[in-house]
Amino acid sequence: MKKSLVALAALAFVGVASAQSSVTLFGVVDAAYEHVSGSALAGSVNGLVQGANSSSRLGFRGTEDLGGGLNAGFWLEAGLNNDSGSGANTSANNQTSQNSGGGLTFNRRSTVSLAGNFGEIRLGRDYTPSFWNDTIFDPFGTVGVGAATNATIALGGANGIQTTVRSSNSIGYFLPGNLGGFYGQAMYAMGENSSNATAGGFDTSKNGNVMGGRIGYANGPLNVAASYSQTKIAALDNYKKANIGVSYDLGVVALMAQYNQEKLGAPGAFGAEKNTTWLLGLNAPVGPGNIVASYNRAKFDNNAVKADQYALGYVYNLSKRTALYGTYAHVKNNGTSANVTAGALAGNAGASGVIGSSNGFDLGLRHTF
Amino acid sequence: MKKSLVALAALAFVGVASAQSSVTLFGVVDAAYEHVSGSALAGSVNGLVQGANSSSRLGFRGTEDLGGGLNAGFWLEAGLNNDSGSGANTSANNQTSQNSGGGLTFNRRSTVSLAGNFGEIRLGRDYTPSFWNDTIFDPFGTVGVGAATNATIALGGANGIQTTVRSSNSIGYFLPGNLGGFYGQAMYAMGENSSNATAGGFDTSKNGNVMGGRIGYANGPLNVAASYSQTKIAALDNYKKANIGVSYDLGVVALMAQYNQEKLGAPGAFGAEKNTTWLLGLNAPVGPGNIVASYNRAKFDNNAVKADQYALGYVYNLSKRTALYGTYAHVKNNGTSANVTAGALAGNAGASGVIGSSNGFDLGLRHTF
Amino acid sequence: MKKSLVALAALAFVGVASAQSSVTLFGVVDAAYEHVSGSALAGSVNGLVQGANSSSRLGFRGTEDLGGGLNAGFWLEAGLNNDSGSGANTSANNQTSQNSGGGLTFNRRSTVSLAGNFGEIRLGRDYTPSFWNDTIFDPFGTVGVGAATNATIALGGANGIQTTVRSSNSIGYFLPGNLGGFYGQAMYAMGENSSNATAGGFDTSKNGNVMGGRIGYANGPLNVAASYSQTKIAALDNYKKANIGVSYDLGVVALMAQYNQEKLGAPGAFGAEKNTTWLLGLNAPVGPGNIVASYNRAKFDNNAVKADQYALGYVYNLSKRTALYGTYAHVKNNGTSANVTAGALAGNAGASGVIGSSNGFDLGLRHTF
Repeated sequence: MKKSLVALAALAFVGVASAQSSVTLFGVVDAAYEHVSGSALAGSVNGLVQGANSSSRLGFRGTEDLGGGLNAGFWLEAGLNNDSGSGANTSANNQTSQNSGGGLTFNRRSTVSLAGNFGEIRLGRDYTPSFWNDTIFDPFGTVGVGAATNATIALGGANGIQTTVRSSNSIGYFLPGNLGGFYGQAMYAMGENSSNATAGGFDTSKNGNVMGGRIGYANGPLNVAASYSQTKIAALDNYKKANIGVSYDLGVVALMAQYNQEKLGAPGAFGAEKNTTWLLGLNAPVGPGNIVASYNRAKFDNNAVKADQYALGYVYNLSKRTALYGTYAHVKNNGTSANVTAGALAGNAGASGVIGSSNGFDLGLRHTF
Repeated sequence: MKKSLVALAALAFVGVASAQSSVTLFGVVDAAYEHVSGSALAGSVNGLVQGANSSSRLGFRGTEDLGGGLNAGFWLEAGLNNDSGSGANTSANNQTSQNSGGGLTFNRRSTVSLAGNFGEIRLGRDYTPSFWNDTIFDPFGTVGVGAATNATIALGGANGIQTTVRSSNSIGYFLPGNLGGFYGQAMYAMGENSSNATAGGFDTSKNGNVMGGRIGYANGPLNVAASYSQTKIAALDNYKKANIGVSYDLGVVALMAQYNQEKLGAPGAFGAEKNTTWLLGLNAPVGPGNIVASYNRAKFDNNAVKADQYALGYVYNLSKRTALYGTYAHVKNNGTSANVTAGALAGNAGASGVIGSSNGFDLGLRHTF
Repeated sequence: MKKSLVALAALAFVGVASAQSSVTLFGVVDAAYEHVSGSALAGSVNGLVQGANSSSRLGFRGTEDLGGGLNAGFWLEAGLNNDSGSGANTSANNQTSQNSGGGLTFNRRSTVSLAGNFGEIRLGRDYTPSFWNDTIFDPFGTVGVGAATNATIALGGANGIQTTVRSSNSIGYFLPGNLGGFYGQAMYAMGENSSNATAGGFDTSKNGNVMGGRIGYANGPLNVAASYSQTKIAALDNYKKANIGVSYDLGVVALMAQYNQEKLGAPGAFGAEKNTTWLLGLNAPVGPGNIVASYNRAKFDNNAVKADQYALGYVYNLSKRTALYGTYAHVKNNGTSANVTAGALAGNAGASGVIGSSNGFDLGLRHTF
């Protein structure tokens, strides 16, 4: 009886024509007290950060059963800086960032798709395939002070690469789910420049164009995947990223490892740049929660930066949807230059100029809906 | 019984007190691969665009039955650049554009209204009455490469007119729906300037004030409507727009035509400007979809620009809510100057300086929820 | 059969696991015609404003029953300029404003919380405790032409204080609801500066840090509360705000009063600044609505500004959720300088330089969902 009451509500709310269709409102609101300090930083910082366990977000998604095994769907997912209520940046052309003012954008994903036995065609802004191994094979999932990516220097200098995580104007293809554990995807995304575009003597017509793919195998306790992507950036040659990740669940503990390489070619203003990073991690159910830990190393060829990061955390589950968590991370710089830090607030402190270390911890509450 | 069930549902979800009330989440996510080229353009461009069949949007709307035939309602509808996840611009004062950063705004419509036997009073940002004939009597609905408006030069130079499609700070009145096929609306919108405002020697106190109305008759296969609006722009005199449109559905094909005139007065920095445009179009159900086609001509008096546009498309309906579509359009410049192009991405290419032509096509997927 | 299918959709919609959980979409769309004029203004202005009876907003909130008397919850609430469809500003660091472009932000509140017998811990952007007395003990609730805050000069000059209403990066604690009428809250919010931050010779490391608390007693017809907060602003010393408010409901009329003091310390660029304001107000149910009225006085020590404001309004309830309303307010400047005005649009008119008066009225429609 209770079910049928709720049923009509759905109809009223989503205004759907088909019983098999649904629209879902979903999200994560995750906030943590964060403290960062260390000799590599000019000062220490206290603050409240979003998404130190799971990136905060607000989304709307839905699917429609078209019959004959065919489905249409949409997915609109906005990043959320819930410490201040602001939204997140996106990029209109994969080359420049947009929206530093803070308005809400569906920067995390905004796609329309058609799926069937053939797999799925997806159009819009979506994750670049080579990002997935970064986050799936990191026990901290690229967020919070423990994220392996904290120990990596972003290539390309101040402008950065806009497509390491997501690409706009993309056409994606995903293999169907019934291939005996094999999965895969490919993406082509466009920078939308004119065919005669030039800048500083470089042909920039293909800038922001992205090609990438990922292939993997998941079966029982094993998951392994490899991916590659490249983004055209005329003045800096291509940005290329390749990685491989693997995880194995022993029951008492899940182990994971990843290896990652990023390159930016020679003709650029910054000279050739190269990042090599690898990680070992684990996730072990203990009591009503999970211990997560990782060790990762990042090497930045350009100016001999090397960094080791150790991270340890505990996630205490209050329910399937809600958790308290604590994470501690330590980054040790070993090279002749120190650029790498721990935690989102480390940027507020700035670099001390000392080839030292930095530390951070998060104490947070994550709620999923 | 059924009503009370819904009431509870509504209560749980929207927190409403009345059984007759509802809140609806709605939207369109439409993405298309677009290619534009031609001798009038400096180059060609490939990209992904939003809304080439129906403008992408995300909205929230609701009504409340107040009893005695009276209803209250709200409507919040945001434009969506789902190729990148960004939002769309609006205007706070009908004079300048806002939000180039890309945050979500309810730019498409944000109104609160009271409706009854007397008609409807609507307050907020809404469509300028004279826009409706542009889109209703265009088989391509002013979107995608086939939109008749692609062949029109925007009056007023770089700043443009902010009220051609919608006006902020508006008070609207709509006739009730029971007038035997007659319909109509009027709008007054305010620029919110001080009564003593001046700029460059002009009285600008009324800038951004909009007055407009539309009246029509729809009965059986026939629909005909005329509209007029003006926006006060001191330095450019008033912007005035008048148009008439008609459609007739023969069953095997629906035919439509429109005639449109826009003027900007003499005292302005650009001299007097005038656009005259007309269109012939059709929409014919063929197989599981519709063929849509139009021919339209635009004449811009100022610098002797004339353009002819031909557009042809097919919309293949996968369901009532979801469609695949393809559109091709060709714009031919005939005057002594060429400024008009096909498709949203043509701006990325820029003008070649040749009085030539431009072409574009869209291949897309549209999903409504 | 159909019912059970839809039932699943509802489950899918709110994504809840527990029958005690819910997600609620809520909001207010309130629009009013406003006119401001008077000898203190350089001109008069007509316009449409948002939220002259209740601030317009769109929000998403939810709770989850964690068992054992514990609840998790989230609250995302965005301010809405529904006259143009734009969003509102927030502040990332309690020191500078963000998002003048107009994109939607959850500036009003964006929190995640854990509540139980101990009270509630709340993390994110939330109201500064000392704001509540301003609005709860003002019959016009700090909105529209009648808001007592219209007669107050904002301290701190052009940059203003970003934390008078809300603070980002906050950790809040709320007493539980079962203390026999006593209620209270405390907040600590962070500016997130580096511990070595300086600017212009001042230590700015604690800038934007907020501490505040509020304690009150509500029982039967009586409600009384006192609060204090301070925000660290190095160059301007601390911003301090203390107030007390009381209301008593006699049945035929509810009476209320408040007293408010704000200070900005000596070392600042503006010299010491001080505001002292008090208010007497009433709210009386008359016919199908309420008469609201207030008299308030504001004194700004710095340049001898004194202002008296009288405001009178009627709210005609069409339902519990929907109302028509009208408000008139008159501000009389008495000091040696005039800076204070009535209504949101008064800023568009600017000051006349005359130590005179200003008037405003709102005629509006408010709809809650």
